[in-house]
Amino acid sequence: MLVSAIQEYQQRVDNQLKQRLSTLEHTAPQLKAAMTYGALLGGKRIRPFLVYSVGRMFGVELEKLDACAAAIECIHAYSLIHDDLPAMDDDELRRGQPTVHIAFDEATAILAGDALQTLAFEIVTEAVPGISSEQHIAMVRVLAKASGYRGMCGGQAIDLASTDKHIDLKALTQLHNMKTGALISCAVELALIAANAPKDQYAAMMDFARAVGLAFQVQDDILDIVATTEELGKPQGSDTESNKSTFPQLLGLQGAQDTAKQLIQEALSALAKLPYNSQLIADFARYIIERRI
Amino acid sequence: MLVSAIQEYQQRVDNQLKQRLSTLEHTAPQLKAAMTYGALLGGKRIRPFLVYSVGRMFGVELEKLDACAAAIECIHAYSLIHDDLPAMDDDELRRGQPTVHIAFDEATAILAGDALQTLAFEIVTEAVPGISSEQHIAMVRVLAKASGYRGMCGGQAIDLASTDKHIDLKALTQLHNMKTGALISCAVELALIAANAPKDQYAAMMDFARAVGLAFQVQDDILDIVATTEELGKPQGSDTESNKSTFPQLLGLQGAQDTAKQLIQEALSALAKLPYNSQLIADFARYIIERRI
Repeated sequence: MLVSAIQEYQQRVDNQLKQRLSTLEHTAPQLKAAMTYGALLGGKRIRPFLVYSVGRMFGVELEKLDACAAAIECIHAYSLIHDDLPAMDDDELRRGQPTVHIAFDEATAILAGDALQTLAFEIVTEAVPGISSEQHIAMVRVLAKASGYRGMCGGQAIDLASTDKHIDLKALTQLHNMKTGALISCAVELALIAANAPKDQYAAMMDFARAVGLAFQVQDDILDIVATTEELGKPQGSDTESNKSTFPQLLGLQGAQDTAKQLIQEALSALAKLPYNSQLIADFARYIIERRI
Repeated sequence: MLVSAIQEYQQRVDNQLKQRLSTLEHTAPQLKAAMTYGALLGGKRIRPFLVYSVGRMFGVELEKLDACAAAIECIHAYSLIHDDLPAMDDDELRRGQPTVHIAFDEATAILAGDALQTLAFEIVTEAVPGISSEQHIAMVRVLAKASGYRGMCGGQAIDLASTDKHIDLKALTQLHNMKTGALISCAVELALIAANAPKDQYAAMMDFARAVGLAFQVQDDILDIVATTEELGKPQGSDTESNKSTFPQLLGLQGAQDTAKQLIQEALSALAKLPYNSQLIADFARYIIERRI
């Protein structure tokens, strides 16, 4: 059930992205091609999955969630394009494919990232029947906060500044809460806004999101050690190679695995407070630390 | 009167930017410093001037325009930071000061641009008494459209693709309508949305904005030939140096000057349709083609 839901929502958001990208005029063909390449390079579409599955749990129709799902994936795609640039992480492969600045060129990759970020904010304000202007504004606010200095972008800056330095567990946790966690929490929050979720359920779901977001990153660090290059779609051991602090480095492999499990327990406890059928989302939380890719 | 108004609004938007940037937590100090440096590197603040002066002409209080003025300048500042990067225009000086990637480093400059773009969308959704959610959403939409693929970002992509190539007047005009004109029109439109301007006045002001936006770029091309390096704050003749198509190149210097004058006549005719005191804005339009910097 989880696998088919992941595939369904993956296809759904891919179609949403394709549709919006294909309607862009052909005025800057190279930029359009790079945006499309970067946005459709595959990936698990975890953030759209959370938008759709959390929204559905609260009884929101998928049509009301499409814009949020596509918008948050545009933000994620833009961040990957810029993170891969030579001046940043300097990665030539992403999901086994050439990164955008390799497939195109650096200037085009910078602009494609920029334009995908803008597109996210354009998409999230699309008129959707049943979504009020107040909800739309709340969506723009949480998306901006999660993406910017206080979230993803600030996290990447701290990550770059921490390379080749020893940082402690508190700093590493904050870094990842910003770099990865903020956007994962945002995916859940966009669904909660679409659902007009009551305050206590909103709070429980945000606890769920925080725990899952951090567990996701801990598992990423673990996979960098235990998975193969083929599974990862990028060189195995690249964190160690680039002198990045990781959870296994600070906690040991077993310690990191225990932390990931504990975080998922917290996530499941938060989820259990809700009066809905949360089976799919609980399965997803467990999958986060069982996945090999 | 024009000079003092320009200075007043320049100071006002600088204070707005400083205030918002200073409240960012100190979690990523290098990124915060680069964002602040890039946003406060000076400049004429033409876009905020248009937000404030057009808004005032329609009777909107300055307090209702502050967020729009700051937001549009964040977009402009981000675009300059990214345009100056080595992979793009590769400029080391901007307004006589080191560009962001020179004063900091490339990775920080990329992130500072990214985070300033996000900040723009955060700022434009700030709650402002007297501005409705519908107005807020309309503001986000026009800001996103003007900044993204269909506007500034697409224009920069076409500009890069046109370097070393001969392009005709129609293509050059479209390029600059997107690269520079879209954001100048957006400044006017943000004020019109804040004012809830009636349809016919809205249309007249958008005609004004289109003409001024293009005249601004024509004059920039002219200044690249006739102004000194000191006046420009960047090397004189850099357009010719970098093989960019310009209006003087296609029309001759006199032809470009005539075009700029004609555009300002169109702008003034559009302005004359409005039942308001438009003296300040008319002076500003004339200044666009009389300026030396």
